[in-house]
Amino acid sequence: MDYSQYFSAALGRLHDERRYRVFADLERIAGRFPHATWHSPSGPRNVVIWCSNDYLGMGQHPKVVGAMVETATRVGTGAGGTRNIAGTHHPLVQLEAELADLHGKEAALLFTSGYVSNQTGIATLAKLIPDCLILSDALNHNSMIEGVRQSGCERQIWRHNDLAHLEQLLIAAGPDRPKLIACESLYSMDGDVAPLSAICDLAERYKAMTYVDEVHAVGMYGPRGGGIAERDGVMHRIDILEGTLAKAFGCLGGYIAAKGEIIDAVRSYAPGFIFTTALPPPICSAATAAIRHLKSSSWERERHQDRAARVKSILNAAGLPVMANDTHIVPLFVGDPEKCKQVSDLLLEEHGIYIQPINYPTVAKGTERLRITPSPYHDDGLIDRLAEALLQVWERLGLALHKKPLAAE
Amino acid sequence: MDYSQYFSAALGRLHDERRYRVFADLERIAGRFPHATWHSPSGPRNVVIWCSNDYLGMGQHPKVVGAMVETATRVGTGAGGTRNIAGTHHPLVQLEAELADLHGKEAALLFTSGYVSNQTGIATLAKLIPDCLILSDALNHNSMIEGVRQSGCERQIWRHNDLAHLEQLLIAAGPDRPKLIACESLYSMDGDVAPLSAICDLAERYKAMTYVDEVHAVGMYGPRGGGIAERDGVMHRIDILEGTLAKAFGCLGGYIAAKGEIIDAVRSYAPGFIFTTALPPPICSAATAAIRHLKSSSWERERHQDRAARVKSILNAAGLPVMANDTHIVPLFVGDPEKCKQVSDLLLEEHGIYIQPINYPTVAKGTERLRITPSPYHDDGLIDRLAEALLQVWERLGLALHKKPLAAE
Repeated sequence: MDYSQYFSAALGRLHDERRYRVFADLERIAGRFPHATWHSPSGPRNVVIWCSNDYLGMGQHPKVVGAMVETATRVGTGAGGTRNIAGTHHPLVQLEAELADLHGKEAALLFTSGYVSNQTGIATLAKLIPDCLILSDALNHNSMIEGVRQSGCERQIWRHNDLAHLEQLLIAAGPDRPKLIACESLYSMDGDVAPLSAICDLAERYKAMTYVDEVHAVGMYGPRGGGIAERDGVMHRIDILEGTLAKAFGCLGGYIAAKGEIIDAVRSYAPGFIFTTALPPPICSAATAAIRHLKSSSWERERHQDRAARVKSILNAAGLPVMANDTHIVPLFVGDPEKCKQVSDLLLEEHGIYIQPINYPTVAKGTERLRITPSPYHDDGLIDRLAEALLQVWERLGLALHKKPLAAE
Repeated sequence: MDYSQYFSAALGRLHDERRYRVFADLERIAGRFPHATWHSPSGPRNVVIWCSNDYLGMGQHPKVVGAMVETATRVGTGAGGTRNIAGTHHPLVQLEAELADLHGKEAALLFTSGYVSNQTGIATLAKLIPDCLILSDALNHNSMIEGVRQSGCERQIWRHNDLAHLEQLLIAAGPDRPKLIACESLYSMDGDVAPLSAICDLAERYKAMTYVDEVHAVGMYGPRGGGIAERDGVMHRIDILEGTLAKAFGCLGGYIAAKGEIIDAVRSYAPGFIFTTALPPPICSAATAAIRHLKSSSWERERHQDRAARVKSILNAAGLPVMANDTHIVPLFVGDPEKCKQVSDLLLEEHGIYIQPINYPTVAKGTERLRITPSPYHDDGLIDRLAEALLQVWERLGLALHKKPLAAE
């Protein structure tokens, strides 16, 4: 029996479709974000990272690093067990309280990652509701799709952000059937936002529960960083809010926040929560420091939006195909996986700019793109150099430019 | 629609069955392991932890804490993205090389946790093999069961550690069908060990692949801490070894190690790997430090076995119902969920000893137990006090003692 053939064939398919991925070996430099060292095949080189999901640079913030260092030194590096088996520690308990407060909910529950939050969270919630129908937005993240699948419940997909379609499905389900609406607040690859207030209206009218993934919004939107739901004043109308500590909060881990009994039920029944080691104390302390800082400091959020707007404006003015949205994500359309990889390779090798290609399965085939994520620490000079580098690469690969608008910016 | 009823009913079932879990809020004290602070409802109290899965106390080792502090200060707290989206960093690349070396394999792949390694690792491997039959040990961990389920492949369960039954299933499957044998090397609740060498014999005879979970063995067995497979000289005969950084290595995360093409295929196809943020640099550096230390230092392993043997000997001599095995796990039979919880509560409240109750679903109903995990840092005095406390609690609750052997120890 030649098992090797199966694995080499699987890899061959990726090479054939030009979507075999190579990861760049990077090393950030705390205090100099977004500058980093790229451990290239020919040795270390300085690069500027333009695609980090540490959106606000909090992973290098002195308060956040300081909290990790202090807790590691005082408590140690790991939790040492599952939540039940000696793994529940004080920094984790404090972090869950901080998250409940952030979202104005009675309780919060931490998971190993945002992925696991969605996967085991949605599966467990839906399983606890007899005959639950899950209404899932068409562009929901893979982790939500896996959670829905694992629930074993019936699932219906509503067209992305299409309220009429959602309403149609809610009506068709009938008033007596339990229903769970699952969506994201900010879709990370297009940067578009869900109409949360209208979704809440529908949920209330047709008596559905709501589960909203805010991983690309927490820390970055709302007066205290509670996300799009906080910004739009609907946080209290959403039953379960899901978020991450690994993006704007600069650490690791995911969570849900909701009423006490919902959290307690998930805590008690979710296998992906029960049977896994708790997050380390230093990670929890660092995340708490980031959340607390962003509850009171608006500088990062304002500067973040300012930088994103400036990048969009300058790239647009240069004729580069920015995909329009109202958020901090700057997608740049390429539309071909091989070209997308070439753009990324040239930027890295010739310009010291790191933006990884976004190809299938992360986005649909034919919509391959660069996904640029400006942070508060990308200054005007870096933005100008990005635009120049992109133009050179665009020209070299014969990619299309828009007609330049006369009155740029 | 009253959704609340479903969650309160689910919680009610747990209360009725006396298996509603309460987590103790603990805080370890680096340098004083296994001593810790219990944040009890009435305020902080000193306790001794007797059930940590930080088996060797590496989570407080100066080299491990030092590595975390150094990397947090130099690089920052988080990875900032998925492996593909700027999240592959140098400490992680180094850790994967260290793990491949530990297991004598061509490559290794890191996941958020051991749970995720099994879940997405097994599911992805089996999906890549057409018509794969998974032969799964009856006592495999929940994470392996979930991985098997998510693969969508046919699964057959072999009776726990029963080689004859495994062989029967291998024969019945026929020579042409691809087969994956999945088991653990050391089962954590009973502390018994799989006959890995004989399993490899069967796998080779009947041409099956092998996947072995070593999470309760890596760091603790084998001359370099490679696990039971290293100790038994069969590491090279097992196709995929899975391990954790969250137990003997004192940190967080899981991994698989195997041939390069297998690792590359899982890296390229596993959704639970692709769509989640990479482990933080400080965690990776700390884990690397722990692995490197335990590759050359045998003191922790020898002292660990010595302490476990002493605890078993003293508890047995006292007539306490130790469930026999040859490893570092010391299960103490109770056989009733409520009594098990009461033993644990009394130990904590009256004796400052923390050992959580192990009830269903972690173990089968009727086999509820305490699970004691002595570390190199539990000295003779602590062991004597443990035995005295257990005897007092056993008497108070009217639990059965064995007839004491005449020649104790």
